[in-house]
Amino acid sequence: MTQWFFILADSELELIPKEIVNERSILNNARARGKAPEKLLLDASHHHPAFARLPDSERRGRPDIVHFFLMLCIDSDLSLEGKLQAFVHTRNNDVIAVKPETRLPPHYPRFVGLIESLYEQRVVPSRENALLELRNEVPLEVLVKALKPDDIIVLTPAEEKTPLLEAFAPLKDKERVVVIIGGFSKGDFRSDLSKFNHTKVSLGPRLMKVWTVTYKVLSAIQYAGKAPEAKVKATEPSKPRRAPKKKEA
Amino acid sequence: MTQWFFILADSELELIPKEIVNERSILNNARARGKAPEKLLLDASHHHPAFARLPDSERRGRPDIVHFFLMLCIDSDLSLEGKLQAFVHTRNNDVIAVKPETRLPPHYPRFVGLIESLYEQRVVPSRENALLELRNEVPLEVLVKALKPDDIIVLTPAEEKTPLLEAFAPLKDKERVVVIIGGFSKGDFRSDLSKFNHTKVSLGPRLMKVWTVTYKVLSAIQYAGKAPEAKVKATEPSKPRRAPKKKEA
Repeated sequence: MTQWFFILADSELELIPKEIVNERSILNNARARGKAPEKLLLDASHHHPAFARLPDSERRGRPDIVHFFLMLCIDSDLSLEGKLQAFVHTRNNDVIAVKPETRLPPHYPRFVGLIESLYEQRVVPSRENALLELRNEVPLEVLVKALKPDDIIVLTPAEEKTPLLEAFAPLKDKERVVVIIGGFSKGDFRSDLSKFNHTKVSLGPRLMKVWTVTYKVLSAIQYAGKAPEAKVKATEPSKPRRAPKKKEA
Repeated sequence: MTQWFFILADSELELIPKEIVNERSILNNARARGKAPEKLLLDASHHHPAFARLPDSERRGRPDIVHFFLMLCIDSDLSLEGKLQAFVHTRNNDVIAVKPETRLPPHYPRFVGLIESLYEQRVVPSRENALLELRNEVPLEVLVKALKPDDIIVLTPAEEKTPLLEAFAPLKDKERVVVIIGGFSKGDFRSDLSKFNHTKVSLGPRLMKVWTVTYKVLSAIQYAGKAPEAKVKATEPSKPRRAPKKKEA
């Protein structure tokens, strides 16, 4: 049985950076929400007028991507079978560990409020019941190595599509597999991926939305190995064929 | 080439109903948003204190489900190839037609604002460029029949799982296929499904989130027929086998 670890890497989740904490759009939003501005999550939609001063402004402030990613992970069959744990790694090397039994609010403003509480309290809802836990200063390679994976997959766009079922089928014989998905809408990974051995998997040249990448991986894990491809049979004639499983697909 | 029509049916999307338009939580929210209360979308998260007076209160006010559904549809390969059109049908028999080239805001509050504009203007962004279009008093069966489908699939939970690839493979030879997904988090379809012939497809007994159902259907369409199952070969030995396609999976 494979244990899967999905990491949303370099995701654009952060509190309002100090350099823009006194900008008008930030102060207005803080007043409307009844919170101190430095305790708010940066949000491109609410705070865009203040972004001019920020480097990388075209990609920052996207808690919505994290939200979508987690909603898909948490309701997946894999997660409900206890075989998937999701982590959010951010541009500032914060890491949020999400217990598989966590129920997250599907309502975006509530999700934002929850993550803001997490940044204040370090764990939510409580230390005894740490469904979400925040650690700082955990570079991607430290998180990856701590998970002791047998294999590491990085989803990344490239001209040539990787045959997905072929890429995922052999992983189902491994014990611990890390899957890394970029948590940003533009540009490339900021973390140095050369610090760990990994296999690149491409869904093609199009920069797909993070939610599309996430469900394509979930589905590839579901279907890989269950519906053997003709190509695989042709190139490996000596291996005994597994009996088809009776379950879905 | 199959044209797919995904309908989110009986979805819990509606303006604030008259009977609760003067409740305090509604008026406060309207003031904060600078809009007349009757022009706001009902939202279980913001307006729950006012829900006691509403029948079916445990399921109403879920624009977030519609948002997730559309975000998944619009970024899908099928949609980008022009083979998928999404419709939102609501509990009040409003129907929103969504052009495949529409870009929707991933930020939930902006999405809500857009749908509120749609309820005011009937089309957005403009009549000349009707990316979203609203019609009233279109019962589900009227919408379904207007699409002139060769086949109609209804996703519904049931004790026994339908083998998904087997169910979708023959549909890929049809010209027009309607797929109906319930747009609610609790309970059952309110529309009378007996008014049109349809095939029930079940993902199992668990009431999955709408986004999970949506991506499972998208993936089943992708994989069906590409990776033929052993079972299908055994029972139909006389049919010539299709050459495996070279594309992903």
